[in-house]
Amino acid sequence: MKTKQFVIIGLGRFGSSLARELIELGYEVLGVDKDEEVVQEMSHVLTHAVVAESTDEEVLRSLGVRNFDTGVVAIGDDIQASILTTILLTDLGVKHVVAKAMTELHGRVLEKIGVHRVVYPERDMGIRVAHQLVSPNLLDYIELSKEYTIAELSVPKCLSGKSLQELNPRAKYGCSIVAINKPSGIIIAPAATDELQEKDVMVVIGTNDQIEEFERSVTR
Amino acid sequence: MKTKQFVIIGLGRFGSSLARELIELGYEVLGVDKDEEVVQEMSHVLTHAVVAESTDEEVLRSLGVRNFDTGVVAIGDDIQASILTTILLTDLGVKHVVAKAMTELHGRVLEKIGVHRVVYPERDMGIRVAHQLVSPNLLDYIELSKEYTIAELSVPKCLSGKSLQELNPRAKYGCSIVAINKPSGIIIAPAATDELQEKDVMVVIGTNDQIEEFERSVTR
Amino acid sequence: MKTKQFVIIGLGRFGSSLARELIELGYEVLGVDKDEEVVQEMSHVLTHAVVAESTDEEVLRSLGVRNFDTGVVAIGDDIQASILTTILLTDLGVKHVVAKAMTELHGRVLEKIGVHRVVYPERDMGIRVAHQLVSPNLLDYIELSKEYTIAELSVPKCLSGKSLQELNPRAKYGCSIVAINKPSGIIIAPAATDELQEKDVMVVIGTNDQIEEFERSVTR
Amino acid sequence: MKTKQFVIIGLGRFGSSLARELIELGYEVLGVDKDEEVVQEMSHVLTHAVVAESTDEEVLRSLGVRNFDTGVVAIGDDIQASILTTILLTDLGVKHVVAKAMTELHGRVLEKIGVHRVVYPERDMGIRVAHQLVSPNLLDYIELSKEYTIAELSVPKCLSGKSLQELNPRAKYGCSIVAINKPSGIIIAPAATDELQEKDVMVVIGTNDQIEEFERSVTR
Amino acid sequence: MKTKQFVIIGLGRFGSSLARELIELGYEVLGVDKDEEVVQEMSHVLTHAVVAESTDEEVLRSLGVRNFDTGVVAIGDDIQASILTTILLTDLGVKHVVAKAMTELHGRVLEKIGVHRVVYPERDMGIRVAHQLVSPNLLDYIELSKEYTIAELSVPKCLSGKSLQELNPRAKYGCSIVAINKPSGIIIAPAATDELQEKDVMVVIGTNDQIEEFERSVTR
Amino acid sequence: MKTKQFVIIGLGRFGSSLARELIELGYEVLGVDKDEEVVQEMSHVLTHAVVAESTDEEVLRSLGVRNFDTGVVAIGDDIQASILTTILLTDLGVKHVVAKAMTELHGRVLEKIGVHRVVYPERDMGIRVAHQLVSPNLLDYIELSKEYTIAELSVPKCLSGKSLQELNPRAKYGCSIVAINKPSGIIIAPAATDELQEKDVMVVIGTNDQIEEFERSVTR
Amino acid sequence: MKTKQFVIIGLGRFGSSLARELIELGYEVLGVDKDEEVVQEMSHVLTHAVVAESTDEEVLRSLGVRNFDTGVVAIGDDIQASILTTILLTDLGVKHVVAKAMTELHGRVLEKIGVHRVVYPERDMGIRVAHQLVSPNLLDYIELSKEYTIAELSVPKCLSGKSLQELNPRAKYGCSIVAINKPSGIIIAPAATDELQEKDVMVVIGTNDQIEEFERSVTR
Amino acid sequence: MKTKQFVIIGLGRFGSSLARELIELGYEVLGVDKDEEVVQEMSHVLTHAVVAESTDEEVLRSLGVRNFDTGVVAIGDDIQASILTTILLTDLGVKHVVAKAMTELHGRVLEKIGVHRVVYPERDMGIRVAHQLVSPNLLDYIELSKEYTIAELSVPKCLSGKSLQELNPRAKYGCSIVAINKPSGIIIAPAATDELQEKDVMVVIGTNDQIEEFERSVTR
Repeated sequence: MKTKQFVIIGLGRFGSSLARELIELGYEVLGVDKDEEVVQEMSHVLTHAVVAESTDEEVLRSLGVRNFDTGVVAIGDDIQASILTTILLTDLGVKHVVAKAMTELHGRVLEKIGVHRVVYPERDMGIRVAHQLVSPNLLDYIELSKEYTIAELSVPKCLSGKSLQELNPRAKYGCSIVAINKPSGIIIAPAATDELQEKDVMVVIGTNDQIEEFERSVTR
Repeated sequence: MKTKQFVIIGLGRFGSSLARELIELGYEVLGVDKDEEVVQEMSHVLTHAVVAESTDEEVLRSLGVRNFDTGVVAIGDDIQASILTTILLTDLGVKHVVAKAMTELHGRVLEKIGVHRVVYPERDMGIRVAHQLVSPNLLDYIELSKEYTIAELSVPKCLSGKSLQELNPRAKYGCSIVAINKPSGIIIAPAATDELQEKDVMVVIGTNDQIEEFERSVTR
Repeated sequence: MKTKQFVIIGLGRFGSSLARELIELGYEVLGVDKDEEVVQEMSHVLTHAVVAESTDEEVLRSLGVRNFDTGVVAIGDDIQASILTTILLTDLGVKHVVAKAMTELHGRVLEKIGVHRVVYPERDMGIRVAHQLVSPNLLDYIELSKEYTIAELSVPKCLSGKSLQELNPRAKYGCSIVAINKPSGIIIAPAATDELQEKDVMVVIGTNDQIEEFERSVTR
Repeated sequence: MKTKQFVIIGLGRFGSSLARELIELGYEVLGVDKDEEVVQEMSHVLTHAVVAESTDEEVLRSLGVRNFDTGVVAIGDDIQASILTTILLTDLGVKHVVAKAMTELHGRVLEKIGVHRVVYPERDMGIRVAHQLVSPNLLDYIELSKEYTIAELSVPKCLSGKSLQELNPRAKYGCSIVAINKPSGIIIAPAATDELQEKDVMVVIGTNDQIEEFERSVTR
Repeated sequence: MKTKQFVIIGLGRFGSSLARELIELGYEVLGVDKDEEVVQEMSHVLTHAVVAESTDEEVLRSLGVRNFDTGVVAIGDDIQASILTTILLTDLGVKHVVAKAMTELHGRVLEKIGVHRVVYPERDMGIRVAHQLVSPNLLDYIELSKEYTIAELSVPKCLSGKSLQELNPRAKYGCSIVAINKPSGIIIAPAATDELQEKDVMVVIGTNDQIEEFERSVTR
Repeated sequence: MKTKQFVIIGLGRFGSSLARELIELGYEVLGVDKDEEVVQEMSHVLTHAVVAESTDEEVLRSLGVRNFDTGVVAIGDDIQASILTTILLTDLGVKHVVAKAMTELHGRVLEKIGVHRVVYPERDMGIRVAHQLVSPNLLDYIELSKEYTIAELSVPKCLSGKSLQELNPRAKYGCSIVAINKPSGIIIAPAATDELQEKDVMVVIGTNDQIEEFERSVTR
Repeated sequence: MKTKQFVIIGLGRFGSSLARELIELGYEVLGVDKDEEVVQEMSHVLTHAVVAESTDEEVLRSLGVRNFDTGVVAIGDDIQASILTTILLTDLGVKHVVAKAMTELHGRVLEKIGVHRVVYPERDMGIRVAHQLVSPNLLDYIELSKEYTIAELSVPKCLSGKSLQELNPRAKYGCSIVAINKPSGIIIAPAATDELQEKDVMVVIGTNDQIEEFERSVTR
Repeated sequence: MKTKQFVIIGLGRFGSSLARELIELGYEVLGVDKDEEVVQEMSHVLTHAVVAESTDEEVLRSLGVRNFDTGVVAIGDDIQASILTTILLTDLGVKHVVAKAMTELHGRVLEKIGVHRVVYPERDMGIRVAHQLVSPNLLDYIELSKEYTIAELSVPKCLSGKSLQELNPRAKYGCSIVAINKPSGIIIAPAATDELQEKDVMVVIGTNDQIEEFERSVTR
């Protein structure tokens, strides 16, 4: 049933990465950029890649963009082109429009003109990298709420060989280990007798403070 | 023990977002940019913010960068300045250097000259957004391995009122619900009798195929 | 009771002309432009004139724009600045926002983000001048509806000395002369015995065809 | 007898709008611009549209401009090209030359070199919009003299259902209602028993003060 | 009685040379240029030298240009500034205005707006140098009419020691030697016995053909 | 015997005027410029006109410039190109090289590298126009020496009808009238009984002071 | 056995001179530059010359650069291109990479990314010329160590006719004359009876001070 | 007696390196550049460093350049400034002028206007590096004549421990070892029993072919 079609306007670093991943996930992607070189490079990756000026209504219409389920406006640094392209996509009847914003003000305009989701790649990655910098063992994380987080932590040397029973994070820090990723495979909902090894990765759920406390105590 | 100090060179969208988050997490941050306006705007957020040309060794030395635990080279679009600044930071003895790369070639140079971690914000966010676009219920995710993923999914209408027992994802799709985030609070390792409601968010662990299968069946 | 206050952003040809006229009509006007020279020239005309970057929220806030009844975004050729400034004015709570559009697409964005009236000076004057070019006697006109127009026509030589009775436009062409502007004063609802003279100007109401027919017959 | 021919040099916002309207009014128009894209866009609207450098005498001669009744120099922002083109048109024998001026100084040069009419679109629209901004009910107006104006006013709610007799503007304010535009049609020289309704538009003649007084009293 | 005053606008190669010569001839000169460096260099040569934008009416008025007998617009390469400045000088009442033209079209505009004399330095010097290149003995010349010329010719070696009687140009070629410039002084209306020497310079009047014939015969 | 050939490099205002005049005088001219448009315009005037980069030795060699009698470097505003082209012409063996200088320093370099004559068109015309401005009757002049001048003067009204005898300039002012240009023809060495008329032009020889004195007395 | 192959990237003054010399020494050279004109000029000198963008990995790969023994990155003024090209050459497996550095910082980056030799042409020639300027007889030199130098000195007039025995530099100054280059040929290890002549060149080995002392005494 | 004074105009890579070396050799150097930053950086190295425009005669005069023994025009990339500065230095009476040339044509102009020595740093270093690239053991060399060279060669492993007697290069290849630089000191005119070691450097005199043959045989 994978038949969703995406049109991505702007094939810079964000747009081309998004387009490649969608193709890899098995979807059809039409890529549009006004830079011929960029389009040529992506043309052997995407379903279609077209050199076009996206602020020209006739051009978008002739590309048949209204037949696409989702349009992504990933235009690099030209706020004006981003806004005009976005309004054209919504005017032409694209059901779901996602746009990349450069500034908060830009993001606010995009929301006002009817974008369904505004993305801030550089800002969001800044936040994500900040967390990884301060927690050396933190590989990735999901913020479930303002309080709760799922953290993917590498197991430090000092915990190597310890069973969950010994470690007992729920009792000591209030957070739970819900999975352990071992070279041999993933253990979901691990038993108290399961042991951690240095190269393992553990998935922990808890409040920010609990996880921080847990991480700090084991990395000391 | 939160006494780590960070020097961040380049206060564009990525650098400033990273800097703000570190400050919020309680760390000291020295921000450096050659654009006076940018520095002025960040000066009331950061511990220190300085207008300086980071490719000038004397300038970096006089800022005392070698006393910082971690240096982040978040320079926007000037590959040359990024490379020269990075080599100066490592020369001056900054222990941990992270740098933002614009292209893979740029990233390879950064690694050769001794950067500890290369970050590609736009590329990484492109991949992340691609996944969210194709799975309407997917809020966020962690790739545990090439096969396994933890997905944060919003509960669709059709599952509202169903208990985990009824749903039984482990039996039907092979994946497990390890947490449910409800307005009333988070339930970690939920019981079989716990019920899902439309506004809930569930955390699922499984292989990519299992989660995809699960999500598709419930959003039909 | 003339206490309405206007803030006009952009003091180019349109903005400055608008600002001057408002001052002449007895209102208070704050003029804003990023070009110092322009501001200096208008500073002795307007109530206040300020050099400022209108896309900066802090700047607009500090100018107290929300206390103004009406904001006019008359920015010359920078569509992006026009859009961002407009959204800031509406965000800050200016009750009535008017904006000048350069293109129809620009106009459509302005409407979507909540502008109360979009003005197209060049386009509208183009239409107005076209009518004057094809009707040598036409001085000005108001389009009452698609069909009806009020036209201000100079009296051609051949009608000099004729009374309205003789001319009888209502009977002959279906249109009425509702006023005659003579050097001695204006005659409203002129009598059948009133005579036209060459330097007079007559105000005619009728359908476009009637007026055209009337004008053509008398200029032959 | 509609056989007048126009040559319009400069197809920007003013020139193209003027050209379109002339075509709509049934005249022949040759459009000239040095921007190929602009010409291409207008080529399916105008009788002829040509890419040409209008400051080159040979070019204008080869276009046969001297056979046109009226030439309009609507060049955007290049005062020098505007002046040189204008002098070439008059030299080549175009009988009636109209030119758009950017500044008063520019306008004065145009008059000295023999232009029959100088147009200031932005300045004139600025004045017109100023009047509309200060009178919320004012839709359009013609200035008959320094004192007298014809105003097209929308009927405010508070006058809904009132007959002209009741309202009696001539007696109370000195101005006359010479026409009422109702959804059902226009009433010219309305009777005392005619009633105003909220969506109607009335045409009022009077001095500026009379109309202002009238408008203010009814909008209170 | 040498009290004429000149204002020269544009102090490039032509304007500065003109200004220097006027000063040397004993006149007062106000020099105006918008380039500060140029003005500084001329300030110790001219009576007054001012940095000013000559297209600004207020500026010219404040310089009191209307009190000058003659205004010279010697602006280098900006046709628009040249035209606007010229019209301002005539508007402000400068009695005699001379302007340098870059092209014939420019020259025609200048004449239309009331310039008393248009100068084409490069074109005129081109013509003058052409004559000198083809006649090796020609030092300078005045064209009296289309036919007649006064030529200043250096005496070639072959004529050294010859008396006018021997040479007899009037009889042989139809042209007359009206003066001989010798190291010892000028002989006006020389006698038949006066002899030419190699370093002498002779002034000849005749038709172009006569002088050419004469020159060719003696340089053979 | 008119077979001299000229190569002119740089077809700006000076170069093209020089080239046209040489053609008119019956010589062959090869024009060279790097601007295609300029060359195209001159191609129907000159013997040959070529688009070429004159600082490239191979290019000049292939044009066969060494076969030309005289080379003129009339390059507009690029001192470097002027110098390099000049040295190439002399290197390639052009016998006579004339070059236009922009500044005195430029002129000095040109002389050092072996130019036979340096021309300063703008400077020289500046001087010439200065003289004409201060003497309203002066049409043209030749400086014979520092002291002596031949002046072409229009006859002022007050001298109309006067015979040379009456005027007697030699006795009164020390200068001689050597020719009178009348509508009927030129009178060389006019007799004492010849009369001046208002439209005549007289050719006067004398010292600068004598001519100035003469002119002043007759224009009073 | 001369079969070494060189690829030289950047054919500016340094690169093209290097390439020409290698060709002259009998080696094969592939020249690469992104400027077409430069490549065309070198194409008849080098084995191959190609217009290509050297920061594009695919381009370098398709040129087969890995088959070259030595790569020289002689890119003129673009530090970024120099660095990226260098890393690509090393990545692609070029065994020996030499690069030209513009600044010391640039040089340090080049060394870090694995360049085998960094060259500073302008800096090195500056040092060499400095020595020649202060020693008028010094033609060339080799610095053997911080102390010892081999100097090639022209024989000054005052030494003409002197034998080495008379001069005896070893005894007087401590330095030795190891060769004399005479018009008739080179004398290696000259005998005590060999005489110096004015046009000869002598090769001297000694400490810097000895040679300086020797040179100074003989040029006095 | 080290009292020579140098003025160096242009403090780029070549000029600054030359200046530094002259200072190190004990001479006085005045450095001139129009870039303030460059001057500031050199000001603590040179005797004097001045920000000045070297094409301005007055400026050079006021710097007293004529009192300097030697002037070096090391201007980077502006051929025109290089030529004009050079002619000013010679005009002002600097006895010895050295100038850096960018191209051969530039060099030829410099020679014509009287420069005493023209330097081509990039070209000369290109040649030097070419020789070093093809001879892996070649450290430096002096070209004594077209045939003879002095080469400084590192001793390859295979010669380690061999005495000159064994090696006997004069007999085998025709070239002589005139010095050996050993860690313990330099041996001038080494004896037959002196042995070479791997880290030694030998100085060889011979024809190019002899040295090449010698080097090739020992590096095999």
